[in-house]
Amino acid sequence: MTSAPIDTTTTAPVAIVGAGPAGLMLAHRLGRVGIECVNIDIRTREEIETTHRAGIIEAVAAQDLVDTGVSDRILRDGHEHPGVDLRFGGQSHRIDFQEHVGASVWLYPQTDVFIDLADARARDGGTVHFGVTDTEVGDVITEQPYMRFTAADGARHEVRAQFLVGADGSRSVCRDLVPEGERTQYFREYPFAWFGFMTQAPQSAPELVYTHSPHGFALLSQRTDTVQRMYFQCDPEESVDAWSDERIWEKMQQIVAGPDGFTCQEGPVLEKTVLRFRSFVQQPMRYGTLLLAGDAAHTVPPTGARGLNLALHDVKVLAGVLQRAVGSEGESALADYEPGALERVWRAQNFSYWMTQMLHAAPGASDFDLRRQMGELDNVVATRAGRTYLAEQYTGWPSDER
Amino acid sequence: MTSAPIDTTTTAPVAIVGAGPAGLMLAHRLGRVGIECVNIDIRTREEIETTHRAGIIEAVAAQDLVDTGVSDRILRDGHEHPGVDLRFGGQSHRIDFQEHVGASVWLYPQTDVFIDLADARARDGGTVHFGVTDTEVGDVITEQPYMRFTAADGARHEVRAQFLVGADGSRSVCRDLVPEGERTQYFREYPFAWFGFMTQAPQSAPELVYTHSPHGFALLSQRTDTVQRMYFQCDPEESVDAWSDERIWEKMQQIVAGPDGFTCQEGPVLEKTVLRFRSFVQQPMRYGTLLLAGDAAHTVPPTGARGLNLALHDVKVLAGVLQRAVGSEGESALADYEPGALERVWRAQNFSYWMTQMLHAAPGASDFDLRRQMGELDNVVATRAGRTYLAEQYTGWPSDER
Repeated sequence: MTSAPIDTTTTAPVAIVGAGPAGLMLAHRLGRVGIECVNIDIRTREEIETTHRAGIIEAVAAQDLVDTGVSDRILRDGHEHPGVDLRFGGQSHRIDFQEHVGASVWLYPQTDVFIDLADARARDGGTVHFGVTDTEVGDVITEQPYMRFTAADGARHEVRAQFLVGADGSRSVCRDLVPEGERTQYFREYPFAWFGFMTQAPQSAPELVYTHSPHGFALLSQRTDTVQRMYFQCDPEESVDAWSDERIWEKMQQIVAGPDGFTCQEGPVLEKTVLRFRSFVQQPMRYGTLLLAGDAAHTVPPTGARGLNLALHDVKVLAGVLQRAVGSEGESALADYEPGALERVWRAQNFSYWMTQMLHAAPGASDFDLRRQMGELDNVVATRAGRTYLAEQYTGWPSDER
Repeated sequence: MTSAPIDTTTTAPVAIVGAGPAGLMLAHRLGRVGIECVNIDIRTREEIETTHRAGIIEAVAAQDLVDTGVSDRILRDGHEHPGVDLRFGGQSHRIDFQEHVGASVWLYPQTDVFIDLADARARDGGTVHFGVTDTEVGDVITEQPYMRFTAADGARHEVRAQFLVGADGSRSVCRDLVPEGERTQYFREYPFAWFGFMTQAPQSAPELVYTHSPHGFALLSQRTDTVQRMYFQCDPEESVDAWSDERIWEKMQQIVAGPDGFTCQEGPVLEKTVLRFRSFVQQPMRYGTLLLAGDAAHTVPPTGARGLNLALHDVKVLAGVLQRAVGSEGESALADYEPGALERVWRAQNFSYWMTQMLHAAPGASDFDLRRQMGELDNVVATRAGRTYLAEQYTGWPSDER
């Protein structure tokens, strides 16, 4: 906290803490209807652009990027994935999304989504401050919440807004503006993490391969023809330094091995990191004039690739609500945000939990647990209903509900 | 164990330890192709007839009872249930089996299945000894396993058989004939049990109602127009004496309460018992000339009503295998039993586990767990694929696979 004198005070209908994909997509959507926002982020644009994150965008979200005029680059540089492999018992079983739900997902790294959005904001003249420090936010139970920060050039800003959006990620400070007595935090920790690495190697498979084995979980994903992104299950306290390239590939080959002779295409490991994860939801998603979106309100384990997609769904709902709130309806419109967003949050929480539980070998898992997981995977791949049940959750619940 | 002198020695192609539904249905199926078996059971016929067990028979199993000539009473005295209710958040959601998988289940108590089978065996001249004592079984790695017992009239019998079937239930002695080093036992305990009771009351609903609530799980099922069977989740150490009728109904109404105003139809409680359960599988299902079927090889939690149906599937596969083995193929045919039965065992294990986990409130469950269960239930009922995924498992996997 700082009490440095304010150099500039401005007003904006909506102030957005966070300039990741959620915060920028919200600003972009509002900008399209003439509502000008101010985004801030403590990270520099370069930091965000170089932090590897998720890479699977559901079809509706991909189409939204195009239709709202962010960019059509996802259709050119992204890769359509009309299915995914579940691998267990040393055999791969393809879930054909197109066959079962008439949808695909797009392999398109989150960093590229961010670049497209940051470029769109710059092109449209939006106000985005990266690399800010000494952020202060408050007065969210009033009609004029504020956001103060020191910009990268050292100037101290205050933005007085009608509405304040916390899109500031899993370490959100905005969510702490909701007093403890007024909020419920739901969470679940997992006894494992993901060891993620990039490798300079050919693709091992054309689509993502989610692998269950007694040696743990692995996910094979792709980036380009020559660079791939892979993960294997590890202890949350694992040190990347303990893993040489040789040891990494030995582990990966052990997990994917099977009677079909499948192997990972090996190459130099370019970058490695341990990704810890948990399930988390804070409710309410709205408190006074504060609205929480994306990871600030909820985080999911990465299994099933729901995180970014869920954030983009939040801001789609929120943009509509804020348009009405800034317009004639005022603050009363905000009451529609949580009802429009929360059901999907919990369904995505369950899907992410389910995929995680079904595919990982929990430390201390009994032989029963491992064998039952195989029974579950058999169930999922053996019938059209099982495959469709997974496909519609993975691709983001198409509109054929009920 | 006893070394009492043998009064009668007979031979039979197949000796069956157990005269519950699994053992009797196997004998009935083999009798139809001219293979005469001997069944024994330590329980009297009256004991078996008066022990309340499961009451849901899947369509294929019901049709098998009719088609194999056991009885068509299930079609007359049983009740076709073309769907089931999932109740959560105080609202009921119907899963329409006929709409989604073109199948029904039949409400027909296991005791009636047993009576039909015992009557059929008597009618067909089958040899069934109820109420035996001092059972000895052995020599199962030879070509002439034996079964010795003292019949209800005090005579000591020895049956020398080609094949010995252990259909002797969840406390099977036959499964212990497989040496420890030759078997794997998979199991999972659950931190809750079912408090089951019969009540003289009208039906609360036309179909089974599986209820999730923060106060625990409840299942409403039916027996007749005036007698119903109900269950609620309890501690495994719960004492039935601690539960007055008033307390039972207070608990049931608390669990089912919701905005739709649904209530249980109350009446005098006729009988009450605590049902403890676990998941269990022993492999292999065949060892030498010994074959394990039904609860002797695997038990499931009652949620999802798989136990009896799975046992009847086992003996359907086993009857075909034994017919070949008694015929020209000999013992080598036995190798086909486990491959024909085991995949369904594990899929049913998973289904029973899944229904149990989805619907019960585990002691110490976090708010996240309870809320996520609601997300899962939302997923299951919200789309055709979700409803079909549950329906095809509940009705026993129709033939539309792959």
